[in-house]
Amino acid sequence: MASLRAAAWLRAPTTNAPRALEFLRTQRSYSSVAAAKASGSSMEQSFFPNEPSGPVVKTSIPGPESQKAIAKLDKVFETRSLNMLANYQKSVGNYIADLDGNVLLDVYAQIASIPVGYNNAALRAAAQSEEMVTALINRPALGNFPSHDWAGILETGILKVAPKGLNQVFTAMAGSDANETAYKAAFMYRRQQERGGPDVEYSAEDLATSMTNHAPGSPNLSIMSFKSAFHGRLFGSLSTTRSKPIHKIDIPAFDWPQATFPALKYPLEDHVEENAKIEAEALADVERILTTYHNPPAAVVVEPIQSEGGDNHASPAFFRGLRALTKKHNVLLIVDEVQTGVGATGKFWAHEYWNLETPPDMVTFSKKAQTAGYYYGNPALRPNKPYRQFNTWMGDPARAILFRAIINEVERLDLVANAAAVGDYLFTNLESLAKKYPGEFQNLRGKGQGTFIAFDNPHRDEFLKKAKAVGINIGGCGESAVRLRPMLIFQKHHADILLDGIEKIIKA
Amino acid sequence: MASLRAAAWLRAPTTNAPRALEFLRTQRSYSSVAAAKASGSSMEQSFFPNEPSGPVVKTSIPGPESQKAIAKLDKVFETRSLNMLANYQKSVGNYIADLDGNVLLDVYAQIASIPVGYNNAALRAAAQSEEMVTALINRPALGNFPSHDWAGILETGILKVAPKGLNQVFTAMAGSDANETAYKAAFMYRRQQERGGPDVEYSAEDLATSMTNHAPGSPNLSIMSFKSAFHGRLFGSLSTTRSKPIHKIDIPAFDWPQATFPALKYPLEDHVEENAKIEAEALADVERILTTYHNPPAAVVVEPIQSEGGDNHASPAFFRGLRALTKKHNVLLIVDEVQTGVGATGKFWAHEYWNLETPPDMVTFSKKAQTAGYYYGNPALRPNKPYRQFNTWMGDPARAILFRAIINEVERLDLVANAAAVGDYLFTNLESLAKKYPGEFQNLRGKGQGTFIAFDNPHRDEFLKKAKAVGINIGGCGESAVRLRPMLIFQKHHADILLDGIEKIIKA
Repeated sequence: MASLRAAAWLRAPTTNAPRALEFLRTQRSYSSVAAAKASGSSMEQSFFPNEPSGPVVKTSIPGPESQKAIAKLDKVFETRSLNMLANYQKSVGNYIADLDGNVLLDVYAQIASIPVGYNNAALRAAAQSEEMVTALINRPALGNFPSHDWAGILETGILKVAPKGLNQVFTAMAGSDANETAYKAAFMYRRQQERGGPDVEYSAEDLATSMTNHAPGSPNLSIMSFKSAFHGRLFGSLSTTRSKPIHKIDIPAFDWPQATFPALKYPLEDHVEENAKIEAEALADVERILTTYHNPPAAVVVEPIQSEGGDNHASPAFFRGLRALTKKHNVLLIVDEVQTGVGATGKFWAHEYWNLETPPDMVTFSKKAQTAGYYYGNPALRPNKPYRQFNTWMGDPARAILFRAIINEVERLDLVANAAAVGDYLFTNLESLAKKYPGEFQNLRGKGQGTFIAFDNPHRDEFLKKAKAVGINIGGCGESAVRLRPMLIFQKHHADILLDGIEKIIKA
Repeated sequence: MASLRAAAWLRAPTTNAPRALEFLRTQRSYSSVAAAKASGSSMEQSFFPNEPSGPVVKTSIPGPESQKAIAKLDKVFETRSLNMLANYQKSVGNYIADLDGNVLLDVYAQIASIPVGYNNAALRAAAQSEEMVTALINRPALGNFPSHDWAGILETGILKVAPKGLNQVFTAMAGSDANETAYKAAFMYRRQQERGGPDVEYSAEDLATSMTNHAPGSPNLSIMSFKSAFHGRLFGSLSTTRSKPIHKIDIPAFDWPQATFPALKYPLEDHVEENAKIEAEALADVERILTTYHNPPAAVVVEPIQSEGGDNHASPAFFRGLRALTKKHNVLLIVDEVQTGVGATGKFWAHEYWNLETPPDMVTFSKKAQTAGYYYGNPALRPNKPYRQFNTWMGDPARAILFRAIINEVERLDLVANAAAVGDYLFTNLESLAKKYPGEFQNLRGKGQGTFIAFDNPHRDEFLKKAKAVGINIGGCGESAVRLRPMLIFQKHHADILLDGIEKIIKA
C-alpha cells in the first residue's frame, strides 16, 4: 500500500500545496466525470470541486471548543450517545468538520444516511427553490389536502426509482414508521383474505373487539423477523428488531417470532458447501415458524444485509428461497431497504441482486432517501377503505423534493456505478491488508456489494476511537464489526486515504 | 347577526371593490396590530396584508381542473380520503385555493396543523435562510452528530415555549412517535424504579427475555388511555387510541386499559352538579384501573380536549384529580398536546388552564409546531444509559428552525391572546345562532377555550359538504361533531364570514 497517496494527509489546509490543489479542483467543471473515472486514482477528479485533499486533525476530539459546546448542549439534550459535535457549515463532500478545526473523512455518514455529500451544490439549489420554500411553509395533510403537484413530485422523484414491479408508494417520515405502516398494510391484507375479500364487511365482533384491543378485531397475528435484525424502535418495529438488549429492554413487545438468519463463514469461496447447508437450515427454520407459530405471521420482514446487527449477509439463493416460502404459505415479503437502499451496495436497491421471479410485496426505504415510506405493487395492498392507512402529515413534501434532487444527482454522476467500482477497489485492497494483518480483519464481507463492506476486529471499540486521531470518522455495528458506510460520492482517492488510515489505526 | 359583514362574500375578486380593498391592505404595515384589535371588526386590520377579503367559489368542488389532477394522482397515491386538491402557491393566510379558482376560508387548517397562515412572510424568510438550507441538505443523526448550533436552536425555539417545569426535550418526527417515545421513557422509568434505581444493572433474565419479546425483559406493563382518545396510529400509540374502529381494526394491539372519559352535559352552567358527579365517577374508574389492571399502567396519557374523538372536554378539576391519582399511585402523567398545543385554546399549552400543583411528567407536541417531541423535567426520565432512547434522525433541525419562526410570529402578533379574544367573540355569536336554530347546534362547547370550539349537528357529514359551496373548508370529529380549527391568525372579520357561512349552510 502506498502510504502517501493523499498528499495532504494529516496536514492542515493552511499550507500552500493543498490550497493550490483545492483551487484547481474548484475550477474544474463536473462535466468530465467519466474521463476522471477512467484515469488512475491519483489523477482522479473529485465530484466535489471544493473538497479538501485530505483530513485535518488539529486537536484531540472533542477539542476544547467542542467540549464547551457539548457541555451547553448537555443541559437540554441527550449527549451521552454523542460521537462528534459537527460544524455542518464547514463540512463538504466526504468531509465532516468540527468547531476545533478538525476535518475528518466521513465513512459513517450520519449512520449511512448522507447520500451525495455535505453541502452538495445540487441539493443546495433544490433547497433554495421556490418549490421547496412553498413545501416547507405550507405543509399539507397529504391524505386530505395534497398539493396539485404532488403526483408530479412523486413521479419525477420517489416513484422514478421504485423497485421493479412496485409502482405505488405510501409515504412516511422515517424508517420506523415506514416499516410499521407496511406491517399495518400486511395485517389488513391478511384479514381481508380471511374475510373473503375487500367487499366483505367487518363483523360486529371485529368492530367491537378492535376498540378494546382484543382479538378478533385486534388479531393475534404477527410479523416474522430474523435474529439480529434491526427494523426500528417504535413499538411494532421494535417487536421485530432483534439487534441488542439495550435497544429492547423494558419496552413491552408483541409476541412475534424470530427465525435464524444464516451465519455465513468467510471467505465465502472457501465455505461454499457449508454455507449452503447453513442457509438451507435457516430456511427450514423459517418454514417451521410460518407453519406452526401460535400467532401466525402475516408477513416476513428482512434486510438484504443485516446492518445494525453486524453486517450479516446471505446469498441471493437464500432470498429466492425465502420468497418461495412466503409465496407457498401465503405470507407477504417485506424487504427493509432503509440502510441498504439508494445505491451504496452497487445497485439502487440491494434486493436487485437476488433476481427474484416475483418482486417483494413491499419495500421500505428511508435514510439516504432523506424521506421514507414503502413501495408496493399489488393494488389489494391499498386498504379496502379510506382512512385505514392515514395520519396527519403522511410524510413531508419538502423531504420528497430533496429525494428527487438526490436521485437526479445519483443519475448525473452515475453514482450507483461509482459505488460498485469504488467498492470493488476498496474490497480488493482490504483483502490485501487482511493478508498483512490477519488478526485484525475477520470475516471481511461485502465483496461485490459496492462500498457496503464490513469486517470484525477483536478490539473494535478501540479501533473506532483511534480512527478519529488519524482523521477518519467510522462506525461499528453488531458486537465486533467495523462497518464502512461511505457516501455515494466516495471515490478511489478517498478509498486510498481510508486504507492508509486503517493501516495506521492497526499499527497504532 | 349582520349578514353582510364581509363585503366580498362569495364575490369573485375580479370585481373592483375587493381589489381596491386588497390593495389597501397590502399597503398597510404589520405595525398597528394592537390598534386594529381595539377597533370594531369591520375596521379590523388583517394580519395578512394580501389576504383576500372573502372566499371565492367559482365551481363545484372538486372542479374540472381538480378532477383531472385527482385522477392522475389516484394512479400512484391514495385519494379516497382526499378532501380537496390544493394549490398552495395561491393560498394565503386563512384562505386555501384550488386549481379551479376556488378560494375557501380554511377553518380546518390541515387537520389543525397550520399555525400562522399559508405563505406566511416570516416563515418564508426562515425557509430561505442560510441556516435552513444548511439544515435541509446536511441532515444530522442528532444523537450522534448534532450540529454545533443545535443547543441554540432548541433554546431559542422548542425550549423557549417549554411548559412550566419541563425544561428538556426529546425531539421526534410527528405526533405518533412523539407519544411512543414518551411511552418508552415511562416504561424505562418504571422498570428502573422496580430495579431500585438507575445504577442497578439489568438481570441476565431481563437481558435474555428482552430479545425474545417476553417478560420480564419485555414487561407486561401498559399505558392507560381514555375511551374516545386519539394518540396516533403506529402500534404503541394505536394501542392507546380509542377513537373509531376504522382506525384500529385488523391491527394487533397491546392489552392496555381504557378508562371512561367524562361525558359532560351542555350547557355546562345548567349541569354543574351532574357534571361534577360524572367526573368523580370517571376518576373512580381511573383509580380502579390503576390499582387493579392485570398489565399495570406505567403512565396515563390524556388529551386536554379529546379532539379526534369528538371534542370532548373535562374540567380543570378533573385533570387536577387525575394528576393527584397518578401521583398517589406512582404512575406518570403524559399530556398529549399534539392538537391542543401552540395557542389555539387561548393558552400556549391547553393544560395551563388546569393550574396543576406539579407539572405533568411529559407533554407531547406536533401539528402546529411543525415538528414533534416530548418535554420533560425530571432528570430521571432521561434513560440511565445512552442509546436506549435513540434513532437515526431523532427529529429534523429544519423543522425545528421553522417552529422557532412560528414561535416568533406568535409572539410578534400576540396570537395566543388573539385566539382567546376571537374565540370568545366566535363562541358568543355561535350561542346566538344556536338559540336561533336550536336543532342544528347541540352541545356547543369550547367556551373560554380560544377558537377550539365544536358542536354536534344531526346531519354533520352533509353539513361539512355544504360548507365548501359557501366558501368554507371545515372539518368534523367524532360521530357528529363539527370542529372549528382555525389558524392563530383567524380574526373577527374571519369569524364573521364563518358565522354567516354557517347560517347559510343551515338554511341551505
